[in-house]
Amino acid sequence: MTEINVAIIGHKFMGKAHSNAWRQVSRFFPGKLEPRMKVLCGKACTEELEATARQFGWEESDCDWQRVVEREDIDVVDIATPGYLHHDMAIAAAQAGKHVICEKPLANTLADTKEMLKAVQKAGVKHMLMHNYRKIPAVALVRKFIDDGRLGDIYHYHGAYLQDWIIDPEFPLVWRLQKKFAGSGALGDIGAHAIDLARYLNSEFNTVVGQMTTFIKERPLVAEDKGLRQVKAGSGTGKVTVDDDTNFLARFANGSVGVFESSRFGGGRKNYNTFQIYGSKGSVAFNLERMNELEFYDREDPQEEQGFKTINVTESVHPYVGAWWPAGHIIGYEHTFVHAFHDFLTALENDTLPSPNFTDGVKNQTVLEAVERSAKSGKWEKP
Amino acid sequence: MTEINVAIIGHKFMGKAHSNAWRQVSRFFPGKLEPRMKVLCGKACTEELEATARQFGWEESDCDWQRVVEREDIDVVDIATPGYLHHDMAIAAAQAGKHVICEKPLANTLADTKEMLKAVQKAGVKHMLMHNYRKIPAVALVRKFIDDGRLGDIYHYHGAYLQDWIIDPEFPLVWRLQKKFAGSGALGDIGAHAIDLARYLNSEFNTVVGQMTTFIKERPLVAEDKGLRQVKAGSGTGKVTVDDDTNFLARFANGSVGVFESSRFGGGRKNYNTFQIYGSKGSVAFNLERMNELEFYDREDPQEEQGFKTINVTESVHPYVGAWWPAGHIIGYEHTFVHAFHDFLTALENDTLPSPNFTDGVKNQTVLEAVERSAKSGKWEKP
Amino acid sequence: MTEINVAIIGHKFMGKAHSNAWRQVSRFFPGKLEPRMKVLCGKACTEELEATARQFGWEESDCDWQRVVEREDIDVVDIATPGYLHHDMAIAAAQAGKHVICEKPLANTLADTKEMLKAVQKAGVKHMLMHNYRKIPAVALVRKFIDDGRLGDIYHYHGAYLQDWIIDPEFPLVWRLQKKFAGSGALGDIGAHAIDLARYLNSEFNTVVGQMTTFIKERPLVAEDKGLRQVKAGSGTGKVTVDDDTNFLARFANGSVGVFESSRFGGGRKNYNTFQIYGSKGSVAFNLERMNELEFYDREDPQEEQGFKTINVTESVHPYVGAWWPAGHIIGYEHTFVHAFHDFLTALENDTLPSPNFTDGVKNQTVLEAVERSAKSGKWEKP
Amino acid sequence: MTEINVAIIGHKFMGKAHSNAWRQVSRFFPGKLEPRMKVLCGKACTEELEATARQFGWEESDCDWQRVVEREDIDVVDIATPGYLHHDMAIAAAQAGKHVICEKPLANTLADTKEMLKAVQKAGVKHMLMHNYRKIPAVALVRKFIDDGRLGDIYHYHGAYLQDWIIDPEFPLVWRLQKKFAGSGALGDIGAHAIDLARYLNSEFNTVVGQMTTFIKERPLVAEDKGLRQVKAGSGTGKVTVDDDTNFLARFANGSVGVFESSRFGGGRKNYNTFQIYGSKGSVAFNLERMNELEFYDREDPQEEQGFKTINVTESVHPYVGAWWPAGHIIGYEHTFVHAFHDFLTALENDTLPSPNFTDGVKNQTVLEAVERSAKSGKWEKP
Repeated sequence: MTEINVAIIGHKFMGKAHSNAWRQVSRFFPGKLEPRMKVLCGKACTEELEATARQFGWEESDCDWQRVVEREDIDVVDIATPGYLHHDMAIAAAQAGKHVICEKPLANTLADTKEMLKAVQKAGVKHMLMHNYRKIPAVALVRKFIDDGRLGDIYHYHGAYLQDWIIDPEFPLVWRLQKKFAGSGALGDIGAHAIDLARYLNSEFNTVVGQMTTFIKERPLVAEDKGLRQVKAGSGTGKVTVDDDTNFLARFANGSVGVFESSRFGGGRKNYNTFQIYGSKGSVAFNLERMNELEFYDREDPQEEQGFKTINVTESVHPYVGAWWPAGHIIGYEHTFVHAFHDFLTALENDTLPSPNFTDGVKNQTVLEAVERSAKSGKWEKP
Repeated sequence: MTEINVAIIGHKFMGKAHSNAWRQVSRFFPGKLEPRMKVLCGKACTEELEATARQFGWEESDCDWQRVVEREDIDVVDIATPGYLHHDMAIAAAQAGKHVICEKPLANTLADTKEMLKAVQKAGVKHMLMHNYRKIPAVALVRKFIDDGRLGDIYHYHGAYLQDWIIDPEFPLVWRLQKKFAGSGALGDIGAHAIDLARYLNSEFNTVVGQMTTFIKERPLVAEDKGLRQVKAGSGTGKVTVDDDTNFLARFANGSVGVFESSRFGGGRKNYNTFQIYGSKGSVAFNLERMNELEFYDREDPQEEQGFKTINVTESVHPYVGAWWPAGHIIGYEHTFVHAFHDFLTALENDTLPSPNFTDGVKNQTVLEAVERSAKSGKWEKP
Repeated sequence: MTEINVAIIGHKFMGKAHSNAWRQVSRFFPGKLEPRMKVLCGKACTEELEATARQFGWEESDCDWQRVVEREDIDVVDIATPGYLHHDMAIAAAQAGKHVICEKPLANTLADTKEMLKAVQKAGVKHMLMHNYRKIPAVALVRKFIDDGRLGDIYHYHGAYLQDWIIDPEFPLVWRLQKKFAGSGALGDIGAHAIDLARYLNSEFNTVVGQMTTFIKERPLVAEDKGLRQVKAGSGTGKVTVDDDTNFLARFANGSVGVFESSRFGGGRKNYNTFQIYGSKGSVAFNLERMNELEFYDREDPQEEQGFKTINVTESVHPYVGAWWPAGHIIGYEHTFVHAFHDFLTALENDTLPSPNFTDGVKNQTVLEAVERSAKSGKWEKP
Repeated sequence: MTEINVAIIGHKFMGKAHSNAWRQVSRFFPGKLEPRMKVLCGKACTEELEATARQFGWEESDCDWQRVVEREDIDVVDIATPGYLHHDMAIAAAQAGKHVICEKPLANTLADTKEMLKAVQKAGVKHMLMHNYRKIPAVALVRKFIDDGRLGDIYHYHGAYLQDWIIDPEFPLVWRLQKKFAGSGALGDIGAHAIDLARYLNSEFNTVVGQMTTFIKERPLVAEDKGLRQVKAGSGTGKVTVDDDTNFLARFANGSVGVFESSRFGGGRKNYNTFQIYGSKGSVAFNLERMNELEFYDREDPQEEQGFKTINVTESVHPYVGAWWPAGHIIGYEHTFVHAFHDFLTALENDTLPSPNFTDGVKNQTVLEAVERSAKSGKWEKP
């Protein structure tokens, strides 16, 4: 067993999820490489940061990410900060010869993502983009069904990712609602997941037409933000500079059509990342809120007994599942990060490129920007 | 096309459902025999009865069922009254040489059902027991799956029929809550359906053990009862003499085990007539509230893709469905009666015995009485 | 009770559904006006047509619709033919002073619909457009919830109507796949329902952008078409001239955004007419395949107990339901037509205009044509 | 922060789940007490055991549980072995003054459980029984609803726990199928969970009547058993000495009735631990396979909008949830153990008795034995 030393930057929602996955990966997916959780990096060197590091299982904390990415004893830099910070961190880490894992979106602009890709390629380091939903057993099973020809030619793809955490107009102006930090709103945060899944499961995008809408244009300023949506409003208001709701149509390279919804105003939908894929031989439907299940319709069943089957994707024969519990003992959200790090470590072990990686980050960003351009031009745009 | 003249006795919930089915059967299932709706029979010769007859599509009304069952021009007597009246009507009709259709339960006592069976057999007339839920396409499809060996050996049967229309202690003491009229409560009214379905789909009962409970022992007297649960409370109260809730365990002749629930205190369950059947090769699950669907699990599917499939039982290849609408255009409650009368007319046409019939009525009653005996004896009882 | 004499034109799928509704309406919704089913009109005066008329409950059959619409004894002309025939029939009926009911779509072109509206207005007759899905109790309940302010301001509307009856490339070139008869394909047949529901429940459309796709461009010619999708392929092939799949985005007059899918390639979806409406105070979700249910989310519930509630829309307090059966005894597809005719007769009785009517037909058609224009122009188009 | 030293006995399915929970508890529920994972104890001192200890996060391994429970540095002994071993281990641990956590069932006989309870009480140590399903947020929410009076008087309780891992008659004779190791089969393994939940949520049991059945009486012997149902058949067969399927009726101390099913022959049910509770004011329904959801029916909703609501029990206001992820990001099976250890540590911190504990183990066992007695006597039996 070889230890591989990890540094993480970011300690809120994503920092917590990544930290957990680093702790858990070798417990459930023992391999030749075992991550050692060296240092957690935050903005300020506070006692709170040190406490968080300890709680999350890191040996040390630090507040100077530039120093951290250059530490000789660090092999992997894991970037779990808001998107606007990714560019500089990833490039610095690559230049220091570290393997880089980066939360999605890779960056807030296409230009940035291209520079980042170039940097990791030039440095010859491994790179991974954290689109954790590819790593859900049910999603990986869809990929397998498609590879096996079970859906046939795909005709129609619908992806919808709805949440509802900002319906209340009094919910404050957190960084995710500001363009300078977040790049975009519903589109870049959750629509990006829908785009990545469509690219993973279906095909590259040929062209898109979309609309972006901000329903609540002014919100209270933030008094306190503890991450994980635990936030308090202060006095004064500010302008919401991102979209609350973005929808678009698509044509894919494989000839299929796509319909996409992303909204933070989907009342009652907590984490409703859903897709339905309709092909000549079969269909599937998935909902993240029931992520251990997959609905599968097989047109080759006898007509009398056709229907959508609810597969409980918890059998040891299913992707990733054998490492966990017996059939019917479901897994949760954070397991997807464990799977991702398992794939990352396996790629390192085999000297292959992890998937998805920065190339996917660039391609996803071209789609995001095409949607944004289309929302302005009122026309179809090519990524 | 030959006309066949029908008289019906009863004009409330069941009278309405049967009348509709007589009107509809030849519209959707045209055959050699076409029913002619001659006369609707009620308790009193009122204008209201005549109006009801006209509204339901009957040529005449009458208030003397004895006169009606002896009319020379009547071929079929359809009894849609409360159970305590069935015995005399069915026997009189049989003795008058009429074919007899009888609502379930066949009667309120085993002795009565046996006399009725004897009477129709002696008279050589056709007889049918209206257990309409056998005639649901999804239920008939289960019967076919079992015949085709798709479930293999059956191990475990669960039937639950829950409603909630009397949870409110102020709901008045309608005839269904009085032993002298209804025989029993949840058991005979809805549990009887669960028993009949189990006999139809699984096996005869070998032995049962049960408990019967009356939660609300005293209720307001009825001021007005328009049928169909539209009823008003008056002053004074009376004793509830039937069970609110009855459950029992069973062993079947085929070696399988059974678990049965029937309750009128199942809050939120409107017409929750459900069963799940588990066999060595497959399982099914059904819920009357979604009567156009059947859930089917096939153990012979590859392990990776096993699961309960929701079959939309609305394809033209499904039982009874071809007569109605294209796939996905669902049918409703009252269609089950149309199917039953179609089967009845087909049996008449082919000179065979309709199914289910009075023999089933006797057998169902033996199970009902065994449950009642067991509730008193505290022991397993044989039907 | 006053008789009102009805003639119907059309005797296949829609003719069957309308005929049933004329037979049933006064049985379940007795009113002052009672329809008398005078004559069923088809293309050719055959024995088969006469038999169909008899089976469906009509007194006579005829093959000359022009003669029929001018018969003095006819009060209402009910047009249940393919869309390309509606224009001439409706105008002739109006000019003959008859009230007119017309299946959707009102016509295949906007110009035609406008002429039809003008004709009925000029003649001063009542007119109704048969968008039967407005008459589903669950849909009418949504309308009531919105009227009562239960959804608040509506932000996001998603309508999807998917079927799968032509996925097989060998399914023949029926009239619904030919532009000259059907106007358009998925869009005009099922997308039109989604549009009408959105106008009924949400708001008028301001602007749309869409894509129309034909996946299978050539199909076998029809050898025999019995309606109701019972059709046989012959030799030779022909060109499919309508869309298999149409999707579009919308902006509504009330400021909300819309996303629409319509496809005949939605494998496993039999009659999947669904919508979800998200507002500031609540959300609803509906699926025609479970048309007796409505999912309702109320943001004003305590946070601890929020969630989508499955309302079994079968209580006597629900729209239309009191006329049928007790709670939990579901109704089916064809009941929606009965409700529509009940509303029509009530409007006649009260001398008001039925809803929806030809004005809705014109408005729906403007949206359909805007989608078609947009699919060609690649730009947003105004209805 | 004070460290508290833990030793665990058992390293298969339950050992893995408990170990994970010890690792995770302070990461997500930081408190004053932090467990230190000292030693994992197995049957033989092998390299494999040492490797497992390391993988699961334990400092050492040992193969002499008696030595381990007497180690001075150990504060808590966590027993995660098959039931027949619990008695001696728990008593030895108690006598050594250790706090004891014991997997369910507490023991295989009532006599044993009583001795164990006596031992921990005499030693004055804390004791906990690991019925982890009490610690599911949705289940804890039910408990809260009942405490708040939201269900009113409870009338009817149905618990069913079905799995299907031994339907195949070739599945070998693992220890869970042998009375000497497991005590009983479906009853003690999964029925015990249903009993514990009913006691937790509803009431103590007054009397029961049941049936126990073994469908497959002879099975292949085991060649290799890696735990977690990963097992290979060898040559020869042996007798199945436990029940495959056990069902029973119950009367509770609070006047409600109960119906219970437990089966390992429920084809397609992977971990179908379900209950429905019907009360005068509301009802709930739960299914472990969708353990992040709770269905709740509130009779006090207006009649027009009543129905079962699917609560996504992932809000920060829900029990235990605040420690994990934002709304809609579901948790999995193993989290229930984390919650249990959190409760255990909190009890230690506050010097209170954890819940459930050995007293519950005794009471559960009285119900299990009453069901067994009843299956033999054919009569109702009191626990």
